[in-house]
Amino acid sequence: MNTVSAVDGPVQSRLLRLLRDTGALSRAELADRLEVPRPRLLADLDALVATGLIREAGPAASRGGRRSTLVELNPDLRFAAVDLGASSIDVEITDGRLEPVTAYSEPADIRSGPKVILQRVNEILHKFRAEGAFERLHAIGIGVPGPVSFRDGVPVSPPIMPGWDRFPVREVLGREFNCPVVVDNDVNIMSIGERYGGVAHSVDNLLFLKVGTGIGCGIYLNGEVYRGTDGCAGDIGHIQVDSHGPVCSCGNVGCLEALFGGGALARDATAAARSGASPALAERLNANSVVTAKDVADGAAEGDVTCIRLIRDGGRRVGGVLAGLVSFINPSMIVIGGGLAGLGHILLAEIRSVVYRRSLPLATGNLPVVLSELGPRAGVVGAAVLASELAYGRPS
Amino acid sequence: MNTVSAVDGPVQSRLLRLLRDTGALSRAELADRLEVPRPRLLADLDALVATGLIREAGPAASRGGRRSTLVELNPDLRFAAVDLGASSIDVEITDGRLEPVTAYSEPADIRSGPKVILQRVNEILHKFRAEGAFERLHAIGIGVPGPVSFRDGVPVSPPIMPGWDRFPVREVLGREFNCPVVVDNDVNIMSIGERYGGVAHSVDNLLFLKVGTGIGCGIYLNGEVYRGTDGCAGDIGHIQVDSHGPVCSCGNVGCLEALFGGGALARDATAAARSGASPALAERLNANSVVTAKDVADGAAEGDVTCIRLIRDGGRRVGGVLAGLVSFINPSMIVIGGGLAGLGHILLAEIRSVVYRRSLPLATGNLPVVLSELGPRAGVVGAAVLASELAYGRPS
Repeated sequence: MNTVSAVDGPVQSRLLRLLRDTGALSRAELADRLEVPRPRLLADLDALVATGLIREAGPAASRGGRRSTLVELNPDLRFAAVDLGASSIDVEITDGRLEPVTAYSEPADIRSGPKVILQRVNEILHKFRAEGAFERLHAIGIGVPGPVSFRDGVPVSPPIMPGWDRFPVREVLGREFNCPVVVDNDVNIMSIGERYGGVAHSVDNLLFLKVGTGIGCGIYLNGEVYRGTDGCAGDIGHIQVDSHGPVCSCGNVGCLEALFGGGALARDATAAARSGASPALAERLNANSVVTAKDVADGAAEGDVTCIRLIRDGGRRVGGVLAGLVSFINPSMIVIGGGLAGLGHILLAEIRSVVYRRSLPLATGNLPVVLSELGPRAGVVGAAVLASELAYGRPS
Repeated sequence: MNTVSAVDGPVQSRLLRLLRDTGALSRAELADRLEVPRPRLLADLDALVATGLIREAGPAASRGGRRSTLVELNPDLRFAAVDLGASSIDVEITDGRLEPVTAYSEPADIRSGPKVILQRVNEILHKFRAEGAFERLHAIGIGVPGPVSFRDGVPVSPPIMPGWDRFPVREVLGREFNCPVVVDNDVNIMSIGERYGGVAHSVDNLLFLKVGTGIGCGIYLNGEVYRGTDGCAGDIGHIQVDSHGPVCSCGNVGCLEALFGGGALARDATAAARSGASPALAERLNANSVVTAKDVADGAAEGDVTCIRLIRDGGRRVGGVLAGLVSFINPSMIVIGGGLAGLGHILLAEIRSVVYRRSLPLATGNLPVVLSELGPRAGVVGAAVLASELAYGRPS
């Protein structure tokens, strides 16, 4: 990861994070909260004002005695958050407190390769600049749908991203916008977003299960993202769940993704529409000539038993894998997100039921299994958090 | 965990660990290795000599210039390491460098309850003292075969330890020997031992798979033991591997332990002996009226095809679970230990084959799967490491 020389030491880093998470504070409040001697704090404040990261914002409300001065993040600070999915680009510009300034999404095929996709990201960002969303970027956070070497800022052997293997994503974006860049896996940024600004706020041991086109798992352990030895931790879509199941795109048999996830659900829903097993799906297939996960969700909402069964079968598969992971890692919370989280309560109920029945009782005694609060925004929120941590430095 | 007031701050703690791991060092070498200013080091050395944890041991070999003084751990330092298994008590006394001073093992049934078992531990330790193995203990490390609240020093809802739930193990032992005590799960202490003094030395992300009467997994992530939210991380014996499998002691169906592990293997071996499928096992059943895992290992060594098949079937089951965990956690090494590790190369080969075939290629590209080096001593070695870390303090 690039480091930002502007931030010097853990006190400045903690100070910046505090201003990010709480807004303007007086010098007196900062001294209290950070528990540093006042002369040390004043020196650090001066240094940060000089770098342009913070500014003084007038006198604070009196606490009795001499008035303290309010300090806040420079309102011109800007981060770019980019979430590359298998079939989408999401970009958000935030201020230093991670409040969105502007946002944009468009469909895109990650298989077009890094040159095409990153060119498009550049165009979107330059357009944002032309529109006045930022003058300069202080950091960029970007997620990609595959394993990443977090240290090197490059994708590593990503199965669904031809042409991206070890492509210097960090370097290319950093050169274009002359700022530090942090690259991570898309599921990791979703879990970071959900833990920063969503339902999993400050949870220590978190599993964030993304169920979309693919299936993956973001992992927080002891309050830190866990990425694994090669950056591919959480890649659970190819865990075998049925040794007699269908052949998977990876060449193995009966992988979780071959049985559930966007592709498998569309396949099974199409079969149910064609065979006449599901009137709701047959109707949609006739009208649109394809059926999607959303059609299954809508059919289930109308009470179509085949749609409900398809979701339940999927929830049972996912729940079975999760139950094993719960016994293994003993998490404090499980969050379900990603495109198929739209299947809603039926999916959640089935996953919960299997996890609670099949995992060690001690591990499920107080284990919430909940839907993502941030939904499709989870990724850009997490990417913005990573960008800010790069710009604000490590607190220890 | 109790803290030891004798050790004051991270420098003293790092100093003690350095002397533990390398033996006597000169003051000059200590200053170099710890990278602390010499006056600070001398003050810390004086403080530690005053507590009796270290002593001066004469002049060091000359490095040119003034001779430096050698410093070493007090040779009278003693730790007790206790490994309680389902059916055994292992106790070792070590010096401050964790070298064994004396050791003892005996069969014992953990179901006798904490009063009986800990009384027996006390007797063994008092006998050691009477024999001169120690004058006083500086810390005790103890492992128990069930989930533990590491913070509270008590077993928590341990399934195979009736009467032990929240029994104050730490307090009872600490009062008896007037020293700090650290309590952990038996599989955790095995993995700590193997990582300190065995094949997994300094490995960052380690899975230590214990295959014995039960099946469990010790987990190191980013160089730290990971214990989970409730202290039950790694309890993988009850992951379902066959939804049509036999009923498990836990009430669920087709758990890994119901299909492999000490109990399941004895059951299947007995059946194979009775049915005549295995001449090797039938002979042993006639001779001893029971067959054990060791009989299966011996039969396999003689080429008995049923014995080989039993081991391979087990390895396939274990390998299937491990393959999923490898995709999930992307470890740097897997070590197989516990009683059934004696099944040796056939078991290991089958586990490897399944893991390499079924896990994500990126995660297995450089993933050693090896047998424990410390074997039955892994537990006491790890318990001694924990005891020393308690006595020497946290380095940060």
